[in-house]
Amino acid sequence: MDTSTNKTTGAAPIGIVGTGVMGASLARNLARNVDGEVAMYDLDQTKIDALLAAHGDEGLIGFSDLPDFVAALRTSPRVILLMVPAGGPVDAAIGSLTPLLGEGDIIIDGGNSHYPDTERRYASCAENGIRFIGMGVSGGEQGALLGPALMPGGDPSVWADIAPLLEPIAAKADDGAPCVTLCGSGASGHFTKMVHNGIEYADLQLIAEAYAVLRAGGRTGEQVGAIFGEWNDGEGRSYLLESAATVLAQTDPQTGGELIEKVLDQAKGKGTGAWTVIAAAEQGVSVSVIAEALFARSTSSAKDERAAWLGAADPVASAVDLDSGDVEQAYLAARLIAYQQGLSLLRVASDHFGWDIPLAEVVRIWRAGCIIRAGFLDDVAAVYAEHPDTASFLAVEPFRSALLDRYRPLGEVAAAAMRGGVPVPAHAAAFNHQTMLTSGSLPTALVQLLRDFFGSHTYERTDADGHFHIAWEDDRREIRS
Amino acid sequence: MDTSTNKTTGAAPIGIVGTGVMGASLARNLARNVDGEVAMYDLDQTKIDALLAAHGDEGLIGFSDLPDFVAALRTSPRVILLMVPAGGPVDAAIGSLTPLLGEGDIIIDGGNSHYPDTERRYASCAENGIRFIGMGVSGGEQGALLGPALMPGGDPSVWADIAPLLEPIAAKADDGAPCVTLCGSGASGHFTKMVHNGIEYADLQLIAEAYAVLRAGGRTGEQVGAIFGEWNDGEGRSYLLESAATVLAQTDPQTGGELIEKVLDQAKGKGTGAWTVIAAAEQGVSVSVIAEALFARSTSSAKDERAAWLGAADPVASAVDLDSGDVEQAYLAARLIAYQQGLSLLRVASDHFGWDIPLAEVVRIWRAGCIIRAGFLDDVAAVYAEHPDTASFLAVEPFRSALLDRYRPLGEVAAAAMRGGVPVPAHAAAFNHQTMLTSGSLPTALVQLLRDFFGSHTYERTDADGHFHIAWEDDRREIRS
Repeated sequence: MDTSTNKTTGAAPIGIVGTGVMGASLARNLARNVDGEVAMYDLDQTKIDALLAAHGDEGLIGFSDLPDFVAALRTSPRVILLMVPAGGPVDAAIGSLTPLLGEGDIIIDGGNSHYPDTERRYASCAENGIRFIGMGVSGGEQGALLGPALMPGGDPSVWADIAPLLEPIAAKADDGAPCVTLCGSGASGHFTKMVHNGIEYADLQLIAEAYAVLRAGGRTGEQVGAIFGEWNDGEGRSYLLESAATVLAQTDPQTGGELIEKVLDQAKGKGTGAWTVIAAAEQGVSVSVIAEALFARSTSSAKDERAAWLGAADPVASAVDLDSGDVEQAYLAARLIAYQQGLSLLRVASDHFGWDIPLAEVVRIWRAGCIIRAGFLDDVAAVYAEHPDTASFLAVEPFRSALLDRYRPLGEVAAAAMRGGVPVPAHAAAFNHQTMLTSGSLPTALVQLLRDFFGSHTYERTDADGHFHIAWEDDRREIRS
Repeated sequence: MDTSTNKTTGAAPIGIVGTGVMGASLARNLARNVDGEVAMYDLDQTKIDALLAAHGDEGLIGFSDLPDFVAALRTSPRVILLMVPAGGPVDAAIGSLTPLLGEGDIIIDGGNSHYPDTERRYASCAENGIRFIGMGVSGGEQGALLGPALMPGGDPSVWADIAPLLEPIAAKADDGAPCVTLCGSGASGHFTKMVHNGIEYADLQLIAEAYAVLRAGGRTGEQVGAIFGEWNDGEGRSYLLESAATVLAQTDPQTGGELIEKVLDQAKGKGTGAWTVIAAAEQGVSVSVIAEALFARSTSSAKDERAAWLGAADPVASAVDLDSGDVEQAYLAARLIAYQQGLSLLRVASDHFGWDIPLAEVVRIWRAGCIIRAGFLDDVAAVYAEHPDTASFLAVEPFRSALLDRYRPLGEVAAAAMRGGVPVPAHAAAFNHQTMLTSGSLPTALVQLLRDFFGSHTYERTDADGHFHIAWEDDRREIRS
């Protein structure tokens, strides 16, 4: 570490590398809310010039020389926020900054990085005495400017240094609490953001399925939008329901009809949704609702396979005439199950990696600013605060009763939709997941017995400890192994 | 490469590293079926001694000195089969062998390696002039001894050298064809075996669900086993159905009742099933039935979450009284969809990695020896032989009609099971997948519109090319990007 360039101490409380829309928005938010000017760095002086021309009077200063940029920062410690594309640019920025920083300085990666990369960078920065923070940022451009949900993860010692910078700029929940907390150590911040996005995949798919079911009952898109608006006024209150009500009311500027009628029904899904499913498969945790949401996108964009079935639609589907109240209960139940699956993944991963993710705090910061914010998260946070070790917030009141009340409508709606030819993979996955959890015994016993039969994998018994194998090819005695 | 040790040329047509049960069984199979003695290597002389004591008269010779082992092999080229645990031992074996081998010699990894490892080894061996083959072996110990399905992948030049060794030992389909083929280049062999296992996960879960549905109708385990036996005598013929009939007839040696009643219903699933789901998530291909099978195992072993719901079973489930013929049709439909999902993954991965996987040949070698062998695979291979570029064998006759005939029973059985509280996640996933494929339009359009609303991700239109965005926060005009 070359400390010669560290002699100059500037006044900027934070520096931001990257002048894209997210970096610029966070910079303006910071400049409004913290003491001192925010230092901006971009290798390209024209970008700095453009940024300062547009927003220089909002408390930003700019540099295209990295040592100058670092010298402009207040020390004890320096705090640098990277807002560059995930992948190579993050490593490049860390590599360039490292020789210019001192022991205990903080680099925050605010990009959408994959958590294994964050874990690696966390370790390599630690070797250089730098405290590295992987931070999920949710809320898009508007959120970054006006109040995002922030999910930093890293060494617990950083919180005292970054909280004064992040709390003022974060979204505020209804109770005024800022939507930022240290999500745990290591890569917990980016992992938490990944799971947030996985839940977002699931909720989007569940809303799309509820839409399809309600449309199959003969309603227009606008009518379904109005129904979503009513749900949003009640227990279902959430940003995504509110958004669905808004977009379904949108007229098509080109045709004057409903815009939704003209939107292509193909979606890709290879980013954070896929990462969530991959992490769940690795950790042995079911995220079946998220997986169905991911794979529904895959199937929607499997053009050649869809083309191969063109015109083959079974004439089962005529009308699925369901009461919208039942569809609402089914949706609310499935949504609860999707959130629980995401939180179960967080819990298991936290144990596995030793991150100490505080679930109550994580849920608390999801209450505003982020895409999956929803009214019921107040109560979820309260459950985790009171029962930090629970395996399932859903199994605890008030959710236990709420879910059991909605379990039957969920099954009825999913079954009716399927009999009517309306695809509801995420609703069905949610229902089947909950049914498995409440079943006293599962047919998985047959899977185990078959695996012993063809692969000598052994089975366990309900009435004795140990692993057992049947000598299938011999005298069929039971062998304890 | 030290060629000094290469001077001696032995007579063994193949050498095997590893004397475990799979290595020994394949060795005995080879010794019975190819000309010349099979050379065995183990660092531990006592293992060689034990092997030769048991099977030395079957045409095996043994070595605990690696140069001696290599010297015992026939050249032009040498063929060495690694039957060591996946992971480090494979790399260690390659590292030890490389200096002893010559240009064009062949190393086959017959273990259960993860395909990215195989891809890496394929490249590093090529740098040393060695032709590396990753080969999936299915059929367990009995299969290895009497006739496994073999799934090698690697450079096309190897086939002429390894076919004379592998064809005689492979299982033979009913038409006499050996169940081995070059599955493509690179890591295609291990990838193919991984997908085979993913399909196995799905079929096991589907059988378990059919069992649960039939049990819910009041049948005993033995009665369900008899029904599976009938299915196996008809169109459904498969090794797993036959096996299920067998294990459900098994008496518990301890209690004298049905063994299935005493088997613990918890299964882990972190191996090839998880790898398949991970690969599908990475490739953007739906394997929803396999994913539900994987996650059903995860949920079955989520002890603390299951415990949290103890006693909460909704009293919906009373009796699900379904005709076993309908359950059979539903199972057969879901199984077809599960196989198609696996084969779609193979097709997309083959394109992505440039492996040229010959699907007709792969299906052909799954007809015997392996766990997922089934009567209908003859026809699947024929479809791919005639339509090598089809996106879906299911969309081609005779499967198209067969599936459309069974589509309604599948929906009815899944819906009835769900309404009765019997979890059928894999059946439901299969039904919903097929429904999506045959739906003219999908509610994914709403997902896309929402993503444009909160993240400016843009949408496409059904009536115009390009990507569009609504100025949601402004005057709501449509912007073409």
